[in-house]
Amino acid sequence: MSDTAPLNAAAGAVHIFPVRVYYEDTDAAGIVYHANYLRYAERARTEMMRAIGIESSALMVERGVNFAVSRCAVDFVKPARLDDALEVHTRVTEIGRASLSAEQIVKRNEVDVARIELRLAVIDRAGRPVRLPSEIRTALINLSQSGE
Amino acid sequence: MSDTAPLNAAAGAVHIFPVRVYYEDTDAAGIVYHANYLRYAERARTEMMRAIGIESSALMVERGVNFAVSRCAVDFVKPARLDDALEVHTRVTEIGRASLSAEQIVKRNEVDVARIELRLAVIDRAGRPVRLPSEIRTALINLSQSGE
Amino acid sequence: MSDTAPLNAAAGAVHIFPVRVYYEDTDAAGIVYHANYLRYAERARTEMMRAIGIESSALMVERGVNFAVSRCAVDFVKPARLDDALEVHTRVTEIGRASLSAEQIVKRNEVDVARIELRLAVIDRAGRPVRLPSEIRTALINLSQSGE
Amino acid sequence: MSDTAPLNAAAGAVHIFPVRVYYEDTDAAGIVYHANYLRYAERARTEMMRAIGIESSALMVERGVNFAVSRCAVDFVKPARLDDALEVHTRVTEIGRASLSAEQIVKRNEVDVARIELRLAVIDRAGRPVRLPSEIRTALINLSQSGE
Repeated sequence: MSDTAPLNAAAGAVHIFPVRVYYEDTDAAGIVYHANYLRYAERARTEMMRAIGIESSALMVERGVNFAVSRCAVDFVKPARLDDALEVHTRVTEIGRASLSAEQIVKRNEVDVARIELRLAVIDRAGRPVRLPSEIRTALINLSQSGE
Repeated sequence: MSDTAPLNAAAGAVHIFPVRVYYEDTDAAGIVYHANYLRYAERARTEMMRAIGIESSALMVERGVNFAVSRCAVDFVKPARLDDALEVHTRVTEIGRASLSAEQIVKRNEVDVARIELRLAVIDRAGRPVRLPSEIRTALINLSQSGE
Repeated sequence: MSDTAPLNAAAGAVHIFPVRVYYEDTDAAGIVYHANYLRYAERARTEMMRAIGIESSALMVERGVNFAVSRCAVDFVKPARLDDALEVHTRVTEIGRASLSAEQIVKRNEVDVARIELRLAVIDRAGRPVRLPSEIRTALINLSQSGE
Repeated sequence: MSDTAPLNAAAGAVHIFPVRVYYEDTDAAGIVYHANYLRYAERARTEMMRAIGIESSALMVERGVNFAVSRCAVDFVKPARLDDALEVHTRVTEIGRASLSAEQIVKRNEVDVARIELRLAVIDRAGRPVRLPSEIRTALINLSQSGE
């Protein structure tokens, strides 16, 4: 049996996380600074994980395991501005042996603001790739299928 | 009648704003980077203002008025860490003609993590001090007295 | 004649910009927070532009023109750590009618730490795409060919 | 003999560190976001320490010692803007048994932009106060007196 579980992303569960835009997020062009969408995305993934019982700090302390972004691609579709109420829509698209892929779309009133695709590596304290712990794997597969 | 309204800070209303600590907030010492408490404080002030009907972006666009931090003093009492659930407790302590003073305490489980005192200047688009618009003044005084 | 000038990227000039890693750049995993490579890249592009006489603030004030990142893809190859001395190697890879493409590689001692590909849109104050001003176009083409 | 060395701050050496303002530093009000002056200050302190042979990461790894900001007070005197060339002028004002005090002034063309006073605690890995290592103490005293 394969270690990789390509998921039916179109059908899978979407985790929704609200984000408000504050002064700290904006720049002198009056819009959200592009790198900050990656912060929003990471907050959203953290809360998606917390919702299925996985907390970043406990994961590191108890298991010595961490998720590190190994690749991302971002389309900046529309500018977001101060006081905007955004949502990050997160969907796990693939669960590998030692990696995860996800699609995250930042929206404002149903309209896409930024689209992010990323790949996370599962690593140990020394930064070496390690196998995704099986109960996290199970929890993520359950989450991904919960919307079908 | 004086323009300055020194408030009974001990008795006045406290606005409470929750903040979760994410990786973006921490540094290589494993704790929240000190400057980031000022970000938390600004988010909390923004939401306190929004709760009384004042939105930063509308304030600037419609009235050409902005609040700028002119002074702050911060005591970093205890370190906060990844995944901590913090609260920012905000109290307006003085409402001046063209300024506001506030005390903001960042807490974790009732324990002080950081204590911030700051003064905000009311400025126009060119950065010059301007009088605090009277309905904002009234809304802030009402807020400050709502807990008494 | 075409508006687009695909450049011989392999041969073109590389702009090198040094970056030091400070506490503010790192996170609780002890490494540079992934989103911060985009900050490094933007500093490097800004200095590359300044080197050919184009300053971001003047560009906006005098011409109402701004460069906005419209797409980026980042490979996080190796972690960077506190006190690392990094370099951002920037190469313009395409000069379009209203856009630019660039490749930026963050290196530490000749070794790739992160590889960034991005596309910048030339926009006006309202965020609409506008034609790249011709003297900026000329300056960028000269820069790109200066290494050949 | 006292552990505390109050220094003749007016006469002591000033370490000067240049900072350029990039988009990442600014906010939608068009100026440097207030919390970012603390980042500039920390970069400047880090380089001042590096100049006398003390590197943050080595300090932590080899001695288990770290400097943590325990208190700061900041006066935001004038706004700084995109592309500004700033300087951080740092002066150690007191060297205690387990703490340091410093004054840091952010200037633009000789004019004060922000004035920062801060106190750093010397702590171990667990965050407990520890004695400032004697050779660091000596190096700092030498530095502070080098301008007299």
